[in-house]
Amino acid sequence: MVLDNLKIVLVETSHPGNIGASARAMKTMGLRNLVMVKPKYFPHPEAIAMASGAEDILQNAEVVDNLAQAVADCHWVIGTTARPRDLAWPMFTPRTLITELKSELKLNQQIAIVFGRERTGLSNEELWLCQAGLTIPTHPSYHSLNLSQAVQIMAYELYQNFADCSLEMKNTEQVNAAALEQFFQHLQQVLILIGFMSATEPKRLMPKLKRLFHRAKIEVSEMNILRGILTQIQQVKGSHEN
Amino acid sequence: MVLDNLKIVLVETSHPGNIGASARAMKTMGLRNLVMVKPKYFPHPEAIAMASGAEDILQNAEVVDNLAQAVADCHWVIGTTARPRDLAWPMFTPRTLITELKSELKLNQQIAIVFGRERTGLSNEELWLCQAGLTIPTHPSYHSLNLSQAVQIMAYELYQNFADCSLEMKNTEQVNAAALEQFFQHLQQVLILIGFMSATEPKRLMPKLKRLFHRAKIEVSEMNILRGILTQIQQVKGSHEN
Repeated sequence: MVLDNLKIVLVETSHPGNIGASARAMKTMGLRNLVMVKPKYFPHPEAIAMASGAEDILQNAEVVDNLAQAVADCHWVIGTTARPRDLAWPMFTPRTLITELKSELKLNQQIAIVFGRERTGLSNEELWLCQAGLTIPTHPSYHSLNLSQAVQIMAYELYQNFADCSLEMKNTEQVNAAALEQFFQHLQQVLILIGFMSATEPKRLMPKLKRLFHRAKIEVSEMNILRGILTQIQQVKGSHEN
Repeated sequence: MVLDNLKIVLVETSHPGNIGASARAMKTMGLRNLVMVKPKYFPHPEAIAMASGAEDILQNAEVVDNLAQAVADCHWVIGTTARPRDLAWPMFTPRTLITELKSELKLNQQIAIVFGRERTGLSNEELWLCQAGLTIPTHPSYHSLNLSQAVQIMAYELYQNFADCSLEMKNTEQVNAAALEQFFQHLQQVLILIGFMSATEPKRLMPKLKRLFHRAKIEVSEMNILRGILTQIQQVKGSHEN
């Protein structure tokens, strides 16, 4: 079921009350998987107080050191962000994300929805680990949505749409975030090797390419081809230089 | 506008933090009218702290002695309740309420959405002041939605449907079919050049790659990068052979 394949990731949350309130918000909507990246205080009595009966979510939560670790097994990583970024990142609202999930989600794909720090959100580096951004539309005069309220809204949308319906999912296997990251490393090596990119000055090239390939939602068989091409370029270049 | 004709009524709220968080939730979604029926503590510093920039909602809030007073000027009064009552009350979910409002609401009608006490909700007498009930669907194992989270969900639904909240999408230019076809030609040349693909037997490789890049909906600026990479590979390979 979709809701079980979904994790909520909280990055460097400052207020333990927000962690507890997020756990409660999740549980009301049937979400169970919480991962925290370096929470400032956890465990903490205020988290338990605000969880108010959803302590099991806290007890079963995972705590990790960085976002890459949190999403390594995920095929879809969606990063929430209050404002559009300079790159034209593919952006969803909760509603359009639901539509996308309904039409594109495949069997057993793992999904992460990532919520950043209370004040500063997600860093650009963290957003580059995400295939897409999620913005909850708020009134132009006041965008200050509390973290747990944002979690509640997204959990609510997911539950309203995926609680009962067993989606018929396509049976192709998409690569996970770890495989995608390895591909990006490999691609960067090759671009430097052929002199297309300067090793010291990667500038904005990799983010642009990442954005493109994130959007493509690459399948395992396609990734094998892409990695094969990169390896072949390395061999051709290497054999010439020997 | 609908959102201005709508008030949120909180009945005998115990925790001032919930009042502040509700004000914040309202303001993010463009709701301005808050009425409190006999709040246990108000004004209160915790309400202000949790409002976090939405103090104006608290300052302009009305405090009254009973629900009848709070909704006297309203044409639609909707009472939230976690469970169906013994009376076969007309019940809405947030979604069906939106549908009803869209089809039935008339110009300048005033609407109240009433939220009861944290523990015990609304009394039967209070529900009889309401035309209909509202239940937010929650997971069967855990219905304990925090008051301000319930306000947030309903405010969110109202704003998504009654504010013009279409996100401004960036105006990026996607490549046309001709440019894509030229790219595929170029890609095929390079794959043959580096020995990844046989010129006589392209098999199913190009269709697979085409499918991937079609799906990515490549933009003009991205296409320039991809073509640049291909040209660079050709030059590196060529210079080695001369």
